Amino acid sequence: MDKLKQIQKLLKYEFKNINLLKEAITHKSIKSSINNERLEFLGDAVLDLIVGEYLYHKFSTQSEGDLSKLRASLVNEDSLAKIAKELKLGEFLYLSPAEENNGGRDKQSLISDALEALMGAIYLESGLDSVKVIFIDLLEKNFPDINLNSLTKDYKTTLQEITQAQIGTAPKYELISSSGPDHKKSFEMAVLLNGKEIARATGNSKKAAEQACALKALEMLKNII
Amino acid sequence: MDKLKQIQKLLKYEFKNINLLKEAITHKSIKSSINNERLEFLGDAVLDLIVGEYLYHKFSTQSEGDLSKLRASLVNEDSLAKIAKELKLGEFLYLSPAEENNGGRDKQSLISDALEALMGAIYLESGLDSVKVIFIDLLEKNFPDINLNSLTKDYKTTLQEITQAQIGTAPKYELISSSGPDHKKSFEMAVLLNGKEIARATGNSKKAAEQACALKALEMLKNII
Repeated sequence: MDKLKQIQKLLKYEFKNINLLKEAITHKSIKSSINNERLEFLGDAVLDLIVGEYLYHKFSTQSEGDLSKLRASLVNEDSLAKIAKELKLGEFLYLSPAEENNGGRDKQSLISDALEALMGAIYLESGLDSVKVIFIDLLEKNFPDINLNSLTKDYKTTLQEITQAQIGTAPKYELISSSGPDHKKSFEMAVLLNGKEIARATGNSKKAAEQACALKALEMLKNII
Repeated sequence: MDKLKQIQKLLKYEFKNINLLKEAITHKSIKSSINNERLEFLGDAVLDLIVGEYLYHKFSTQSEGDLSKLRASLVNEDSLAKIAKELKLGEFLYLSPAEENNGGRDKQSLISDALEALMGAIYLESGLDSVKVIFIDLLEKNFPDINLNSLTKDYKTTLQEITQAQIGTAPKYELISSSGPDHKKSFEMAVLLNGKEIARATGNSKKAAEQACALKALEMLKNII
């Protein structure tokens, strides 16, 4: 079975326009006039809506803030790459030889982008409902236990997950100063992203100060993201 | 004509479920169990997809990066508030007396949120195509000249627009140091957001250093947003 047939079988979807499928699996390292970046742009918005609506119905009394957090935990490079891996998407990508040698088929960013592009392509030719059926099925298979537990994680873990997913880097913590007598010490810590300080906070233990830093950073990022 | 009828006439859409309309115009200052925040969450994703697809077709050769920038210039508090104002949405909102006295009906955030919630509500009961017809019509009326000019704006302007829209604050620039002889001076400037430095750069004039700061900040924000 050729690769294009294989991928359609895995997706349980038959493309009407096979060029759209080819476009969706063409990485930009192929220097042709067409690659999957525009479809990825579309697919990203499609998945945000589909998963947003899914959560809206599934958690009918949760606040908009909780829904946003839940969605961010599902529609991100990590989670999409997990689904893409399950589909073995990496094997099907059109890559340049250089990107191939560079391990492109295993890169999280490449395969999650291709998954978004494929969903964008299906949306274009068959509409939102077709993508819903396909993607929600993939989502539930790969994340059988979608719930609000992730929201009760500590701030440091949450911050790390967000920064890993969004900018591929983990936050670092630095002790700025400590003061006060031994029984009543106060610690000032800073949290750094890519070596740049993004927040600073104090606490009566290093751990407490780090959590306070992470919370500040999360609130800051919430305003930007 | 009562207000609910009036707003449906302005939207050129008749709600099947009038409670959904009421929910969409209920601000959280009304301390009832239901307000428009969940619908706004949904509507925001609906508009990202609709406007994304519109631009995808309208600018069929533009890069994904340009499409993202264009969409960000259209789906943001400023632009949505312009449309909401045209619809006189502020007059129809259910607000607490305190929020009313506080000028709530004129607040950009309140009316743009309500517009998103209304689009979310229409999506829920009538699907994506219904919202497309209504919103693209509103978009084209309010922005008759959607083009790529906004992309050629200088970096300082672009940064200011983004930070105003996303976190409601304008960047400030500070001279850090200058050095070198008069004919070959070098200036180091920093750009601050909410009093916090987010980037630093040098240039052979203050203006050039500011532009370089803004570009750095934009690239940084691009990774986070």
